[in-house]
Amino acid sequence: MKAYGRFIARGEIYEGYFTFSSRMLNFDGLEFPVHAVRFLAPVQPSKIVCVGLNYVDHARELKMELPKEPVIFMKPSTSIIGHEDIIELPKQSNRVDYEGELGVVIGKKCRNASREEAYEYIMGYTCFNDVTARDLQQKDGQWTRSKSFDTFAPIGPYVVSISPSNLKIETRLNGKTVQSSTTSNLIFDVAGLVEFISSIMTLKKYDVIATGTPAGVGRLKSGDVVEVEIEKIGILRNYVR
Amino acid sequence: MKAYGRFIARGEIYEGYFTFSSRMLNFDGLEFPVHAVRFLAPVQPSKIVCVGLNYVDHARELKMELPKEPVIFMKPSTSIIGHEDIIELPKQSNRVDYEGELGVVIGKKCRNASREEAYEYIMGYTCFNDVTARDLQQKDGQWTRSKSFDTFAPIGPYVVSISPSNLKIETRLNGKTVQSSTTSNLIFDVAGLVEFISSIMTLKKYDVIATGTPAGVGRLKSGDVVEVEIEKIGILRNYVR
Repeated sequence: MKAYGRFIARGEIYEGYFTFSSRMLNFDGLEFPVHAVRFLAPVQPSKIVCVGLNYVDHARELKMELPKEPVIFMKPSTSIIGHEDIIELPKQSNRVDYEGELGVVIGKKCRNASREEAYEYIMGYTCFNDVTARDLQQKDGQWTRSKSFDTFAPIGPYVVSISPSNLKIETRLNGKTVQSSTTSNLIFDVAGLVEFISSIMTLKKYDVIATGTPAGVGRLKSGDVVEVEIEKIGILRNYVR
Repeated sequence: MKAYGRFIARGEIYEGYFTFSSRMLNFDGLEFPVHAVRFLAPVQPSKIVCVGLNYVDHARELKMELPKEPVIFMKPSTSIIGHEDIIELPKQSNRVDYEGELGVVIGKKCRNASREEAYEYIMGYTCFNDVTARDLQQKDGQWTRSKSFDTFAPIGPYVVSISPSNLKIETRLNGKTVQSSTTSNLIFDVAGLVEFISSIMTLKKYDVIATGTPAGVGRLKSGDVVEVEIEKIGILRNYVR
């Protein structure tokens, strides 16, 4: 399998394309045992644009109307953590939720891309967890505070170039499946999102679009392990403290 | 007057502290006539955190309740333009408004700063125009789209280190005063905003906090000239197309 990312192995940081199997990772002629590699967030985006209510069932569970156009919001780059990093529960919230999502990573500068051109600007896909302080989201009206705490944007473990149209997506909490859907249930698909967002703002290389979460969002507690698994990509695992 | 910023003079880009009078600008021993200097956006922030409804009179004109805590949202770094740059009206909106604001520029990494410590983390202040597609703001509920178009974050012309507590702030549209207030009318003051925002997310050097706009917001049309002037700072002038 070929992927793009950033990782630490034998005390060095590597960044770029690599290939790997279940046992070994190959980077530019170097070989590392996969268990000895620590993945970092695969990219350092200038912005993370997220889409709300992009699965019918999730909109229903929040008792919100279906949007006619994508509803967007942003998370700051300071909220990013990588695979196996810790989600820190902030003292301001009594209810922090996981939201497993497909992340789209932009590969080159993009403005006013059409649906048809969209895939030219995409470097690949990764797992994303749009961690959300649900109580603050409901209280504020605007979603920014509830989604912007440090550690609230787990992303990774790496970026792969695949077709995003029909991928199983699953979130597990302490090993139990809590969200299960496929990206074919997206209300606005990946190409449509790139078209919509790039009609508003310039997307830069490494910027991330988080495409929305399916039904089944729920609470994280200290000590939990949360995993977002997407077919053909892999598993993003994070610990909660 | 001493200030920090970025500018082009004689074909070179300069960045850092400089002093200037109405006629000459001095940078590191070099002298340039002020009229031959082109200011760029003074900083390139990793994020712009904005505060909504932070003047009583503006909340009233939008018929919104006064917030008990600051309401925050973000603008992407791709929306930034500098002094004398052009605000481009997007085709998606029929109503784009100016919102003159005091901008706070962070001087060093900041997390969980108290009110008392807040000023240690501030590099200085500048003029900011939180350009907003009012129709999309009302339609979306979430404010991100309406505030995130390219060119919707004019900032500058430079950053100065002053006390922010009682500064006259005025917006002029084609020379006519349309907003006029002072920063003493802020519901949440600068120190309180740094405390609040840094309790959520890490602020990095050059990040910007836009502190909210007073009453008098109104529409921009193609051909307009909009100026945000703040006492002891200067004038941020932009053209609309």
